[in-house]
Amino acid sequence: MIEIAVQSHHRREMIEITSQINAALDAAGIEDGVCHIFVPHTTAAAVINENADPDVVHDLLNAWAKLLPPIHFAHAEGNSDAHFLSSVLGPSLLVPIVRGRLHLGTWQGVFFVELDGPRSRRVWLTPVAARPEI
Amino acid sequence: MIEIAVQSHHRREMIEITSQINAALDAAGIEDGVCHIFVPHTTAAAVINENADPDVVHDLLNAWAKLLPPIHFAHAEGNSDAHFLSSVLGPSLLVPIVRGRLHLGTWQGVFFVELDGPRSRRVWLTPVAARPEI
Amino acid sequence: MIEIAVQSHHRREMIEITSQINAALDAAGIEDGVCHIFVPHTTAAAVINENADPDVVHDLLNAWAKLLPPIHFAHAEGNSDAHFLSSVLGPSLLVPIVRGRLHLGTWQGVFFVELDGPRSRRVWLTPVAARPEI
Repeated sequence: MIEIAVQSHHRREMIEITSQINAALDAAGIEDGVCHIFVPHTTAAAVINENADPDVVHDLLNAWAKLLPPIHFAHAEGNSDAHFLSSVLGPSLLVPIVRGRLHLGTWQGVFFVELDGPRSRRVWLTPVAARPEI
Repeated sequence: MIEIAVQSHHRREMIEITSQINAALDAAGIEDGVCHIFVPHTTAAAVINENADPDVVHDLLNAWAKLLPPIHFAHAEGNSDAHFLSSVLGPSLLVPIVRGRLHLGTWQGVFFVELDGPRSRRVWLTPVAARPEI
Repeated sequence: MIEIAVQSHHRREMIEITSQINAALDAAGIEDGVCHIFVPHTTAAAVINENADPDVVHDLLNAWAKLLPPIHFAHAEGNSDAHFLSSVLGPSLLVPIVRGRLHLGTWQGVFFVELDGPRSRRVWLTPVAARPEI
């Protein structure tokens, strides 16, 4: 397992980590297979979405905020909104690796999603072997 | 990695691809393990849900549309609704393979979810080996 | 593939299954890799979230209920709400295994999410090998 560090600077924020993951795969000498990307936090998430137009990131953050229901949360820490969005977006991704890099669609990037920042966060990468028959 | 093609015919649509994936696994001679199913698009997704009653598909498409917030989106392409639903539903699935076929629950099928069609789309399959000890 | 049984007692319920999964990995002699956790039902899901304060579970169940749109569902079985939440939360997780146990963040637990209970349910575990190079 490879651990990478992510520092967030806002309460809610999308931080692209595609290059950071590629650099970690490169340092570990991983050439192909599938990369498991796991966020070990309950108030953060990982998503894949467009990394070309920053307006998409802006729109996603605004739209996710509108998913939050206007209810009273019991959890005393006051961050149940972050636990909720984390449950909807999910903590884990799996992406093919080809020639040592994440093999993504043309417009896709991998984003760490901070939902209760700013904080120092970690992401765990586990390369998995594809079947040799392929 | 195995690529399959999917053609959508509507703006939002669920297209079942279970048989297409099974045929691709068969052609590649994959007998067991786990199948990674990845959508390399930012305005589409992949979900597993009931494939028996078409009313479920109808209800899901209607309910997802109701998740869309009545806000102004900045992204000039005008399809931020699709990016948003893609982020909530997710681009990637992992399903066990037993005796050369996706091993799903009785009522489950794998669906490509078009969110900004009609378009010609692709789905990437990567078979992964389960542990030999099992 | 390892099957574990889960019995739910309410219509909607989060049931932590971290210990049950660890016991199953132990019984199977799995020491490391990645664990695929799959729910073979279309009206249930699996999520990772905080297992320390029961108020978080309470808040998540309440917030998910607020995602349900006030629309008429066509599906005659009357449980399209469960199909919808299952599609948003997802049926599948992937978690690193270190020294024979799920390797989770400090506050994370794995939960089976019942959305149309009470029912007798199953969860399928498939251990996958991480790359030997790591």
